[in-house]
Amino acid sequence: MRIDGLQYANWSPKIFRQMHEGGVDAVHVTIAYHENFRETVANFERWNRWFEQYPDLIMKGRRASDIDTARETGRTAIFFGFQNPSPIEDDIGLVEIVHTLGARFMQLTYNNQSLLATGCYEAQDTGITRMGRQVIREMNRVGLVVDMSHSADRSTIEAAEISTRPIAITHANPHRWAPALRNKKDDVIRAVVSNGGMFGFSVYPHHLKDKSVCTLESFCTMIARTAETFGVRNFGIGSDLCQDQPDSVVEWMRVGRWTKEIDYGEGSADNPGFPDMPDWFQDNRDFGNIADGLRAVGMNADEVAGIMGQNWYRFFAENFTAETR
Amino acid sequence: MRIDGLQYANWSPKIFRQMHEGGVDAVHVTIAYHENFRETVANFERWNRWFEQYPDLIMKGRRASDIDTARETGRTAIFFGFQNPSPIEDDIGLVEIVHTLGARFMQLTYNNQSLLATGCYEAQDTGITRMGRQVIREMNRVGLVVDMSHSADRSTIEAAEISTRPIAITHANPHRWAPALRNKKDDVIRAVVSNGGMFGFSVYPHHLKDKSVCTLESFCTMIARTAETFGVRNFGIGSDLCQDQPDSVVEWMRVGRWTKEIDYGEGSADNPGFPDMPDWFQDNRDFGNIADGLRAVGMNADEVAGIMGQNWYRFFAENFTAETR
Repeated sequence: MRIDGLQYANWSPKIFRQMHEGGVDAVHVTIAYHENFRETVANFERWNRWFEQYPDLIMKGRRASDIDTARETGRTAIFFGFQNPSPIEDDIGLVEIVHTLGARFMQLTYNNQSLLATGCYEAQDTGITRMGRQVIREMNRVGLVVDMSHSADRSTIEAAEISTRPIAITHANPHRWAPALRNKKDDVIRAVVSNGGMFGFSVYPHHLKDKSVCTLESFCTMIARTAETFGVRNFGIGSDLCQDQPDSVVEWMRVGRWTKEIDYGEGSADNPGFPDMPDWFQDNRDFGNIADGLRAVGMNADEVAGIMGQNWYRFFAENFTAETR
Repeated sequence: MRIDGLQYANWSPKIFRQMHEGGVDAVHVTIAYHENFRETVANFERWNRWFEQYPDLIMKGRRASDIDTARETGRTAIFFGFQNPSPIEDDIGLVEIVHTLGARFMQLTYNNQSLLATGCYEAQDTGITRMGRQVIREMNRVGLVVDMSHSADRSTIEAAEISTRPIAITHANPHRWAPALRNKKDDVIRAVVSNGGMFGFSVYPHHLKDKSVCTLESFCTMIARTAETFGVRNFGIGSDLCQDQPDSVVEWMRVGRWTKEIDYGEGSADNPGFPDMPDWFQDNRDFGNIADGLRAVGMNADEVAGIMGQNWYRFFAENFTAETR
């Protein structure tokens, strides 16, 4: 079983076929960065159209058992998520609405301060806000997973404490392996995984040691060490694959509508676009390379199966449905 | 089994308890007259809150089997509908979105011309529009029922012809019994029921012979005659109960935002408000009076059971889910 904890590709039938060729059973797909509610609904609509047009390749994912259906029928189940809480605007009632429409993950911040928490690029991290506490409780109630991938450390640790259900960092790597601002220090990882939360290892070059030239062995050794430290059950892949996107999209991700100036995020003025992916992970057909790499650094079959999909499957099964009283 | 094909009450725990006392297993509830998409979402949110607050009295209805669950647990299943296509704005993609959120009926018009068809108060009826044909096809695909209660005759007959699935007139009466503009002539009724469509008899006084002083016997005799003429299987109740609403609401229903002048609709300048309900149907506890009245005019037990709920149940079971290819 192969499940990817995050992608934001420029979707096309070509990519849907590559997911099939790569044996990818499920993907958590970002459908909002800075979109407000109505704009996010338009993005749900676009996916509804793809589900109608390509029913032999993809299907909407609502619950973990949809992954079984996808496997049995040779398709990929698409689970939706937001990298920012902008789709719920200032309205807590929208949490249940977006869950009903299919959202299963929502980041409380995307780099900047939000109404709910502090992003990882802010100078001061004031933790979870008043509205943030209310929204986490509502997300717990309906089964919308708190994702803190782009949040600051204190906010992340507080979210893990406040949330009564496990939270996630869907796409990042350990800071001690690659000290990027977006990568996570040990106490942050521990706060997330110690209550059953999940951490997805990212293949996005800005999160990799040596960036685009990071070796498969280095990446897989990092995974094996992290699993040894924290326990393998709470880790998976969150590739952050942004396949076929024009550079205008990474600018939208970084800048949205919040500034009139350019913000380069993890890039720089002389390297503003999407970075080149490592040669061992170009698209969805390359998940087998990671599985091979994990075996090559000594992980056993159960551990590899967990990292490649079983751990996300278990997390999906436990966290996408309404809280039972 | 008791199912009401339309209500628009000023909802409160008092009314939810009266539905329970009246043995009402399911109600099609109007949640939009002139609301745009975002305003309609706010109305879904309000119901989500009621479902959370009164889980022992009401539950959200998505499919016919939810009515069985409601019966087994002593609750009322609430199915949503719109009396106007305003919630989908000019966007056909919103048809599936509102169905996902729980909408199961949508009128193509509310009295006036819409983007889709002609309302029953227009001087000219030009039938189903270009967008109307596309939207009917999409409604058929996802399982959103076409309701023509407030539409003009030609538009209604065309909708019945164009739709590949049965349509409904959820709340009206035969024009030959009470010649109100909103009541339906025989050829309109025949067009709807001849392809499996449903017709719900209204208790709203403007649709009754003798209005508020209409007798139970007159109402039930009319039902029996209509069932004899067209076949009992395609008829039910659509009470149009607007309990506890202030008169400002009937003005909103009639006027919305489309005119600066007052439009009295079925009322008049000297009688602008909600009319008094007949003494035999004041609220949800009075469905037993209608069942008694139907037996008193000679309908047998099966026929009464059909009118009071079984016919709607069968229609719900066949028309609320996506079309199978």
